[in-house]
Amino acid sequence: MSEDVIKTDAVIIGAGPVGLFAVFELGLVDVKAHVIDILDRPGGQCAELYPEKPIYDVPALAIVTGQELTDRLMEQIKPFGAEFHFSERVETLEKTDEGYRLVTDAGTTFECKVVVIAAGGGSFTPKRPPLPGIEQYEGTSVFYSVRKMDAFRDKDVLIVGGGDSALDWTLNLQPVAKSLTLVHRRQEFRAAPASVQKMLELVDSGNISFKLGQVTELHGDNAQLTGVTVKRPDGSTFEQPTEVMLPFFGLTMKLGPVANWGLNLEENLVPVDTEKFETSEKGIFAIGDINAYPGKLKLILSGFHEAALMAQQAHKYVHPDKKLIFQYTTSSSNLQKKLGVK
Amino acid sequence: MSEDVIKTDAVIIGAGPVGLFAVFELGLVDVKAHVIDILDRPGGQCAELYPEKPIYDVPALAIVTGQELTDRLMEQIKPFGAEFHFSERVETLEKTDEGYRLVTDAGTTFECKVVVIAAGGGSFTPKRPPLPGIEQYEGTSVFYSVRKMDAFRDKDVLIVGGGDSALDWTLNLQPVAKSLTLVHRRQEFRAAPASVQKMLELVDSGNISFKLGQVTELHGDNAQLTGVTVKRPDGSTFEQPTEVMLPFFGLTMKLGPVANWGLNLEENLVPVDTEKFETSEKGIFAIGDINAYPGKLKLILSGFHEAALMAQQAHKYVHPDKKLIFQYTTSSSNLQKKLGVK
Repeated sequence: MSEDVIKTDAVIIGAGPVGLFAVFELGLVDVKAHVIDILDRPGGQCAELYPEKPIYDVPALAIVTGQELTDRLMEQIKPFGAEFHFSERVETLEKTDEGYRLVTDAGTTFECKVVVIAAGGGSFTPKRPPLPGIEQYEGTSVFYSVRKMDAFRDKDVLIVGGGDSALDWTLNLQPVAKSLTLVHRRQEFRAAPASVQKMLELVDSGNISFKLGQVTELHGDNAQLTGVTVKRPDGSTFEQPTEVMLPFFGLTMKLGPVANWGLNLEENLVPVDTEKFETSEKGIFAIGDINAYPGKLKLILSGFHEAALMAQQAHKYVHPDKKLIFQYTTSSSNLQKKLGVK
Repeated sequence: MSEDVIKTDAVIIGAGPVGLFAVFELGLVDVKAHVIDILDRPGGQCAELYPEKPIYDVPALAIVTGQELTDRLMEQIKPFGAEFHFSERVETLEKTDEGYRLVTDAGTTFECKVVVIAAGGGSFTPKRPPLPGIEQYEGTSVFYSVRKMDAFRDKDVLIVGGGDSALDWTLNLQPVAKSLTLVHRRQEFRAAPASVQKMLELVDSGNISFKLGQVTELHGDNAQLTGVTVKRPDGSTFEQPTEVMLPFFGLTMKLGPVANWGLNLEENLVPVDTEKFETSEKGIFAIGDINAYPGKLKLILSGFHEAALMAQQAHKYVHPDKKLIFQYTTSSSNLQKKLGVK
């Protein structure tokens, strides 16, 4: 447990696109921020769930992957030198005389004037299939997301599930894997018909196999999978040689400790006003997918707007003696200096 | 005056970045749009006032010029095939049984369910020279733009100003006019050197005249100009026979006809709610710099958010029988089909 206390203007919880852009908007109004995320790198859902999948509705970026969006935002916020604390989760948040104190599960302690919760759907976790001993294979043979396709090159890959993720990765990994088998418990899929069609064509041409059934057992040793047992709908079973298994059973979002911070909550969302995106606690803001207000859409572009309006109010808490004059980056040499372009 | 009526789902007034992105958000929910702008191309202020100047606060675009932002948005909205009506200004907007009817100054008439005002700071209006009685000649003898060159055929034309517009029209109208005189108060021009050079050659060859000075008086009757008084830098004056005068003194922003549409206004802004960004009139929305609500910042990124929330409500007016299911471009093959990427 670290004994040191980090004193800063603002702590941003969540390093997804909205948390990252909050660094930018706070930076423009001279509010320094630390950013905490439970994941081991920036990007949040974007980088975790669909790093290679295109997003089409970020304004002025007709096609951008989650990873590229993240990289672009990291580049944009560079001038503000925010410090990042990855693989940490804020466990406690309490009021102090001067603002707030936060402590993470790694013991890092922050004291700040302003807290910005940009935690998306909360800490999100892939649904783990109910298979005995699966934990020992996670990260070596069992993966819930694809970080680098190359990690699956020349492997016997088993994909489990019938949704878009399962189908998309079946199509994407097929050219890379040594062998690819898709297992799903039903003939019906909850995926784009075009993807299902393509998958069936790959089955017909002998490039992949599709097996109806459910994985019931994992076999292997030292965290290295060698095969799985699949139970067919008729109750019979077979063994499927497997080096790598990717179960896509969806994600559960868990609000996690946010629920214990004394904020008003509505169905695991944090209600905010639409003027400052402030919660029921003064100085605690909620932006992005975690907040709720009339008309709310869980869109990245809305989180950007929320970050901008939040920053105006954050400035008042951090610099109560200074009057904020609204300026444009296009014309203000003051802002351009902060951005390092003047 | 055109007799045809264009029937469409939505009319967007203003082709700035926010108006353009409205095409995208409306397109995603199957609302077809026509876009009207007083300028002769897309981009609004961005393209008109600072096409080459960088903007630093468009999320995920660390540096982008007004022109590049415009080009990127035009690319992004291409799948939705919106029709553009440039160099037109909406003069009247009235309620009909089924929605709204709009008529532009060119006589184009639209009937639609939804109107989206994305007019920024208002219409760009040419600066009127401070000449007593100039109003009576406007539209007959005094023009601030050239719609059809033929209107100036065989006339004694006087052009006033020293910028690109003044120089360009001097060069373009010279072959058409009976006589052409350029008046500018200084020897220096704020125009492309090549245009200035060409103009000086036309002066040398006797095809046009250039006179140093300022127009101080207009003469004529029944809205028909016969001549003007020009004051030279030394204070002396002369008369210049003139049938048509074109003053090019730059543009100012004016709310324009929006003020006459019966909407509630606050200091030339249109108040809206923050749930749907709808005005006091159902089915008329205001997004971008022209609207007002608590916390409002005149940022492009806020206009993008406003466009997204507006589109949800617009869908209800255009497709009252259809329930809108919120989908993501990343995962919805339905949306991807509309975008032409699936």
